[in-house]
Amino acid sequence: MRPSGRQPDALRQISLEPGFSKHAEGSCLVRFGDTHVLCTASVDDRVPPFLRHTGLGWVTAEYGMLPRSTNTRTDREAAKGKQSGRTQEIQRLIGRSLRAVTHRQGMGELQIKVDCDVIQADGGTRTAAITGSYVALHLAFQHLVKIGKLKAVPLTDSVAGISAGIFQGAAVLDLDYAEDSTAQADTNFVLTGSGGIVEVQGTAEEKPFSQEQFLELLALAQKGIAELTALQKAALGL
Amino acid sequence: MRPSGRQPDALRQISLEPGFSKHAEGSCLVRFGDTHVLCTASVDDRVPPFLRHTGLGWVTAEYGMLPRSTNTRTDREAAKGKQSGRTQEIQRLIGRSLRAVTHRQGMGELQIKVDCDVIQADGGTRTAAITGSYVALHLAFQHLVKIGKLKAVPLTDSVAGISAGIFQGAAVLDLDYAEDSTAQADTNFVLTGSGGIVEVQGTAEEKPFSQEQFLELLALAQKGIAELTALQKAALGL
Amino acid sequence: MRPSGRQPDALRQISLEPGFSKHAEGSCLVRFGDTHVLCTASVDDRVPPFLRHTGLGWVTAEYGMLPRSTNTRTDREAAKGKQSGRTQEIQRLIGRSLRAVTHRQGMGELQIKVDCDVIQADGGTRTAAITGSYVALHLAFQHLVKIGKLKAVPLTDSVAGISAGIFQGAAVLDLDYAEDSTAQADTNFVLTGSGGIVEVQGTAEEKPFSQEQFLELLALAQKGIAELTALQKAALGL
Amino acid sequence: MRPSGRQPDALRQISLEPGFSKHAEGSCLVRFGDTHVLCTASVDDRVPPFLRHTGLGWVTAEYGMLPRSTNTRTDREAAKGKQSGRTQEIQRLIGRSLRAVTHRQGMGELQIKVDCDVIQADGGTRTAAITGSYVALHLAFQHLVKIGKLKAVPLTDSVAGISAGIFQGAAVLDLDYAEDSTAQADTNFVLTGSGGIVEVQGTAEEKPFSQEQFLELLALAQKGIAELTALQKAALGL
Amino acid sequence: MRPSGRQPDALRQISLEPGFSKHAEGSCLVRFGDTHVLCTASVDDRVPPFLRHTGLGWVTAEYGMLPRSTNTRTDREAAKGKQSGRTQEIQRLIGRSLRAVTHRQGMGELQIKVDCDVIQADGGTRTAAITGSYVALHLAFQHLVKIGKLKAVPLTDSVAGISAGIFQGAAVLDLDYAEDSTAQADTNFVLTGSGGIVEVQGTAEEKPFSQEQFLELLALAQKGIAELTALQKAALGL
Amino acid sequence: MRPSGRQPDALRQISLEPGFSKHAEGSCLVRFGDTHVLCTASVDDRVPPFLRHTGLGWVTAEYGMLPRSTNTRTDREAAKGKQSGRTQEIQRLIGRSLRAVTHRQGMGELQIKVDCDVIQADGGTRTAAITGSYVALHLAFQHLVKIGKLKAVPLTDSVAGISAGIFQGAAVLDLDYAEDSTAQADTNFVLTGSGGIVEVQGTAEEKPFSQEQFLELLALAQKGIAELTALQKAALGL
Repeated sequence: MRPSGRQPDALRQISLEPGFSKHAEGSCLVRFGDTHVLCTASVDDRVPPFLRHTGLGWVTAEYGMLPRSTNTRTDREAAKGKQSGRTQEIQRLIGRSLRAVTHRQGMGELQIKVDCDVIQADGGTRTAAITGSYVALHLAFQHLVKIGKLKAVPLTDSVAGISAGIFQGAAVLDLDYAEDSTAQADTNFVLTGSGGIVEVQGTAEEKPFSQEQFLELLALAQKGIAELTALQKAALGL
Repeated sequence: MRPSGRQPDALRQISLEPGFSKHAEGSCLVRFGDTHVLCTASVDDRVPPFLRHTGLGWVTAEYGMLPRSTNTRTDREAAKGKQSGRTQEIQRLIGRSLRAVTHRQGMGELQIKVDCDVIQADGGTRTAAITGSYVALHLAFQHLVKIGKLKAVPLTDSVAGISAGIFQGAAVLDLDYAEDSTAQADTNFVLTGSGGIVEVQGTAEEKPFSQEQFLELLALAQKGIAELTALQKAALGL
Repeated sequence: MRPSGRQPDALRQISLEPGFSKHAEGSCLVRFGDTHVLCTASVDDRVPPFLRHTGLGWVTAEYGMLPRSTNTRTDREAAKGKQSGRTQEIQRLIGRSLRAVTHRQGMGELQIKVDCDVIQADGGTRTAAITGSYVALHLAFQHLVKIGKLKAVPLTDSVAGISAGIFQGAAVLDLDYAEDSTAQADTNFVLTGSGGIVEVQGTAEEKPFSQEQFLELLALAQKGIAELTALQKAALGL
Repeated sequence: MRPSGRQPDALRQISLEPGFSKHAEGSCLVRFGDTHVLCTASVDDRVPPFLRHTGLGWVTAEYGMLPRSTNTRTDREAAKGKQSGRTQEIQRLIGRSLRAVTHRQGMGELQIKVDCDVIQADGGTRTAAITGSYVALHLAFQHLVKIGKLKAVPLTDSVAGISAGIFQGAAVLDLDYAEDSTAQADTNFVLTGSGGIVEVQGTAEEKPFSQEQFLELLALAQKGIAELTALQKAALGL
Repeated sequence: MRPSGRQPDALRQISLEPGFSKHAEGSCLVRFGDTHVLCTASVDDRVPPFLRHTGLGWVTAEYGMLPRSTNTRTDREAAKGKQSGRTQEIQRLIGRSLRAVTHRQGMGELQIKVDCDVIQADGGTRTAAITGSYVALHLAFQHLVKIGKLKAVPLTDSVAGISAGIFQGAAVLDLDYAEDSTAQADTNFVLTGSGGIVEVQGTAEEKPFSQEQFLELLALAQKGIAELTALQKAALGL
Repeated sequence: MRPSGRQPDALRQISLEPGFSKHAEGSCLVRFGDTHVLCTASVDDRVPPFLRHTGLGWVTAEYGMLPRSTNTRTDREAAKGKQSGRTQEIQRLIGRSLRAVTHRQGMGELQIKVDCDVIQADGGTRTAAITGSYVALHLAFQHLVKIGKLKAVPLTDSVAGISAGIFQGAAVLDLDYAEDSTAQADTNFVLTGSGGIVEVQGTAEEKPFSQEQFLELLALAQKGIAELTALQKAALGL
C-alpha cells in the first residue's frame, strides 16, 4: 500500500501552468502533487565560447531549491558559496535532456537558459523540472518564431521525466518523498514523446536489484511518460 | 503622471497570502502589484554562538531573487559563488526590521530564519519582503504557542516597509520598476504599526534633495504603512 | 553626560591631512578623534564595461579595516576569502555619496577608485571615510587638471558624512564607539556643502524612534556637516 | 570496426596492481588500457556527524584527474578553487557503488575514504575507478581485520563498473576515448559479482535509443563485469 | 651608483615607532625609508587545535598591503576573495622568523597573532615587517608580564630582517623599489641579534650567482642586522 | 647515524623516467627514494596577458599532492577550494627555477605549463619536482624543435634541486621524511649544471644556525647537484 493510497502505476495529480512568469520568454509552473517547480526559459544572444562561429545553438539549465521548499530548512547555496554535487548533477541532467530533443542547427547561434527553481519539494523534483522545462522551452521557441528570429520551433520531439522505484518490494510510479526516502531502488527515466530513451539513472539504495525488476520499472515509466506527454501537448495547445 | 496611472499616494494592489508553504512553520506570499515575494519562517532550536546561555532568541533573514524574476535574467548567486552587496544589504535590513519588534527575551533560546525569495520583481522587493516577513514570523510564533513551546507571541508591535520617492519632480508612494529606475530620489521606510520609525534609508540618485522633500516622503510612507498594517492584521485574522 | 565629556552637538577633534600617501593621485588621512581612516584616490583609465563608449566617468569605493584597528582583533577579510555584508554596505554607501557630487560627463571616460582603510576605529568610520574621501577625490581631480587630462575639477558640490544618535535619551552628534555600541538609535547623514541630503540611514537599535527625534538628529547633523565642510575647504586650500 | 580493432564484446587489457601505495591501508593501480587510475583507501576513526553514536560506518570517495592526464591539459581544480559538476557526479557515484556492497553495521563507527586519481585518461575513468576502488577497499578492510579492529571483512559482494555504448550503430563494450567522444549512446553499469544491478546510467548523446538497444548494452556489461570480477578475485588472492 | 645615492652598505633611514596602535597589546610602525609597515601583536587565549593540551604557545603572522600602498593600485585581496601566493609566502616567513626566537614552553597555551599591514611600499616590505614585528611581539609579551599572565618575556633572542642584492653588478644592502625591480639577485636574510641565521632566501632574477657573491651579500646583511638590532633595543628601551 | 643508513653525503636512489605520460609534450617520473613525482610539460600557444606582443615566452609550474601520497591522508585541495600557502610557495619556486635557465626570447610567444604531482611523498618533494621538471621541460622543447616550431632548445643550462640539513647535529644531504621532520635546519638549493646558484632557501627549525654550518650544507648540495646533473643528461640522452 502506498502512503498516498495511489495505485502502483498512478501518477500524482499533475498540472502544467504555462506563461506563469511575466518576464521570461517561456515559463511553466509544474506541479507533481506537492512538488512545485517554476521553470523559466530565457533567451540569450550569446552562445558559449566553444560554439561561436559554428552556427549551432545551445540549451542549458540551472536548478535550485528555495531553502524552505524542503521539510526542514536547507542552507541557501548562495550563502554557502557553492552549489552542491546534487544540484550540479540535476542541472546537468536537465540540460542534456532538453538538448536531446533540440535541433541545434535550427536554433542558430542562440542560447536558451532554463532555470528550474523548486518552490516546494515532495520528491521527484528533477523529473518535474524536466517535464515543465520542455513546456517553457517550447514557449520560448514559439516566442522567437513569433518575433521572426526563427522560422520554426527547432524541437524534434517532446521530452519528459518520471521516477519509478521499488517500495516495500513493489514497483511503483512517480515516488513522493515518503516513498523516495525509504525506497529500495530509485530510478529516473527521461523519455521522448515517441518513446525513445534519453536518460536512465537507476540506483540501488539498499541492495542490488535484478534485470527483471529494472524492466518492470521501465514499463511503468513508459506508461507515465505517455500521460505526461499528453498533458504537455494540452498545455502548449498542440 | 505615474506610468501605472496611480495617484501619488496610492499603493499598488497588495495581497498577503498566509500559509502558502506546506513545510514552513510560518509563511506568506506577498504581492505588491507585479512584485511577488515568498516569505517563509523556519524555527531552529539553535541560536548563534554569541547568544548561547543568554536566554535570548534571534531572528535573522536571507533574501534571494530567482534568476528570471527580473526583466532580463540575473546570474544565479549560487552559481557565481557569492551573494552580491545588494543582497546582503537587503537581508541585513529585513533582519534588523523584524528584530526591532521582537521581544527576544520572550522567545527563549530559539532562532527564526526568515527566507524572502523574490518570485517576480517589479520594484520594491525589499519593502514587500519586510511586510510579508512580519506575517510569516507571526505565524511561526503562533505555531510555537500552539505546540506549547511559547506562552505568547513575543512581538511588541507590527512592522511593515514601503518606498517613496521623487519621480518627475513629484513625491510618490510605492514605486514600481518603471518609476524606481528613473526616480530622482528613492527612500525606504520601515515603520511599526503604531507609527514608530524602525529604519529610514534615503538616497539621492541624481541630485540631493531637501529636508522639505524628505518630510513629504515620510508623510506618504506613514499613510502607506497604515494601509499595510490593516492588511497584515486581516491576513493574520487579528 | 557623554563618556567623552563632549557637548551634545560637539564633534570630536577632526583633522584632515591631505597628500598623506606618496603614490596615490589624491589622498587624505582623516581623523575623527581616535577613528583614523586613510583615503586614497587612484585614477584608472578604464571605466567599467557598462560605461564604455558613453562618455561618462565613474567613481567607486572600497572599504576595509585593518584586523587590529578594532578593540578586539577582527578576522582579516582577505584570509576569510570574502568581504562581510557590513563592508559591502559601507563601500557602496561611500561610492554613491561621492558620485552624487560628481559631474560624470565632465570626467570623460575615467574611473577613480577610492580606497578607505581604517587604521584605527573608534566609531563613525563610514562618516569619516566619506569626509576624507571627498578631499582625496578632489585632489585626484586637481592632479588630472594639472597634467592636462581635465579642464576643470568635475565636482558640483562638496560632500561629508556625520552620525547622530540617541544616547541615554538625548540626541548627540558624532558618536564614538562607547556611545555607538549602546545608542538607542543610530543615524548617518551624508549632506552636501550647500545642505542638500545625499544619503540618510537611520536604524532604531532598541525601540522605534519618532519623527520629532529624527528631525532633532537631522538638525545636529546639519550643524556638524557645516563644520566639516569648512575643514574640507581649509584642507584643500579653497 | 572499432578504432582499437577490438571485438564488440572485448574489454581493453585490464590490470589491477594491489598495494601500489606505500602509505595507504589499501591501494590499487587499475589500468583499463591507457586509462590508469590510482585508488587508495584511507581509514579514518571519525565518521561524519550524522552517523555518530549510530554504530554504523561510512565509505566515501573523492575523484580527481591530474591536469595532463588528458589529451589537452585540463585546468587544475585546486587552482580554480572548485570541483566541476562532472567530478562531483563521479565521486558520488563511486561512493554509492562501494556502499552498496558494504555491511555498514559490520564496520562499526569507522570511515573509509577512497581517493581515485586519474594518472592517465583514455575513456572509462569512472568505471575503472569503481573496479579498482573495490580492491583498495577490500585491502583496507583486510588490514583492519589483521590489526584486530574488525573481525571480518564487512563486504557482502564484490562490485565493478564497465561502460557500453552504441558506436557507429553497433553495441560495444568498454569504450575508449576515441569511441566515447563520438558514441551515439553511452551507458555505465555498476554490477555486483553475483550479477545484481547497483547503478545504471545511460545517456543518449545524439538521438534517443530504444529499449532493445538498452538490453543489448546490459548484456555486454554483464559479460564484462564477469571478467572484471574474476580479475578482482585474482588480485585479492581470493 | 645607487638611485638613492646611498653607499652600498647603507641602510635607508630606519624608524621604529612603538605603541602606535591604541588597541593592540603590542604595536610598532616601522619605516625603512618610504616603506611603512604597521605591525600589531594581538593576544588570543586559544591556541590552534594541534597545540591544545600541550602547554605550548604559538606565534603566527598575517600580511597585507593596502591597495594603494604601491605605485600603481593593486587589487584588494579581500575583494578578490583570496590571498596571493606572494602574500602567503611572506606571512609564513614572518611567522617562522618570530617563532625561531620564541620560547614556546614559556608562553603557555597562548597565541599571538601579528598583523603586518603595509601602509606604503617602496621595496623590502617583508624585511621591514619582520623587524617591526619583533618589537610589537616583545611589547605584547611585556604587557602579559605586566598583567601577571607571564612571569618573563619568553624570547630567546631578537630577530630582524634585511635584504641584500646585486644591482648593476655590485652588492648592495637594503634595496628600495628602484633597485629591487631591476636587481640581478635578490636575497632576504633573517638573523638573530646574536648573529645566527634564521632564514635565508636568495633568488637569481636574471642569471645564477656564485658562492662568492652570496657570501658578500651575507656580510652586508650581517652589518645591516647589527644596526637594526641596536634600533630595536632602543625602541624597546632595553 | 641516518635512519636510512646512508652516508651523510649520499643521495637516495634516484631514477628519472622520461616520457612516462602518453599525452604530454614532455614528461618525467622522478623518484628520490620513496618520493615519486610525475612531472609533465604542456605547451600552450597563449602567453599570459602581460607578455603579449613582447616576443617573450613563459614557463610556469603547478604543484599538487595526491591526498594519500602522505603518511596520513591530507585533505584534497580541490575539495577545500583553495591551494595552501605551502603549495603556492612550492609552485612559485619551481617556476622561478625553470625560468632561470630558459632563454625566453628563444621560445617566442609560447607558454609551457609544468605540472608536478606527488604520487608518493617521503620528504624532498620540491627538489625532486625541480629535478624532474627540467627533464620534462627539455623534452617538450625537443618536441617543439622536432615539429619545427622552434629552431633550438632554448635552455641556457640545466637546473636541479636538492635539500641538505642538520640532523642530529650533522650536515646531511637529501633528507627523507624521517630526517626532515626532526631536522634542526632545512635548506633547499637549486643550482645549475655549471654550479651557479639559482635559489637558496634555508630555515632554522629549532635554533639558528651559523655561517659555517650553512657553507657545509652548500658544499653537500654542490656534490648532490653534480650527481643529479649527470642523471638528467643520461635521461635525456645528451
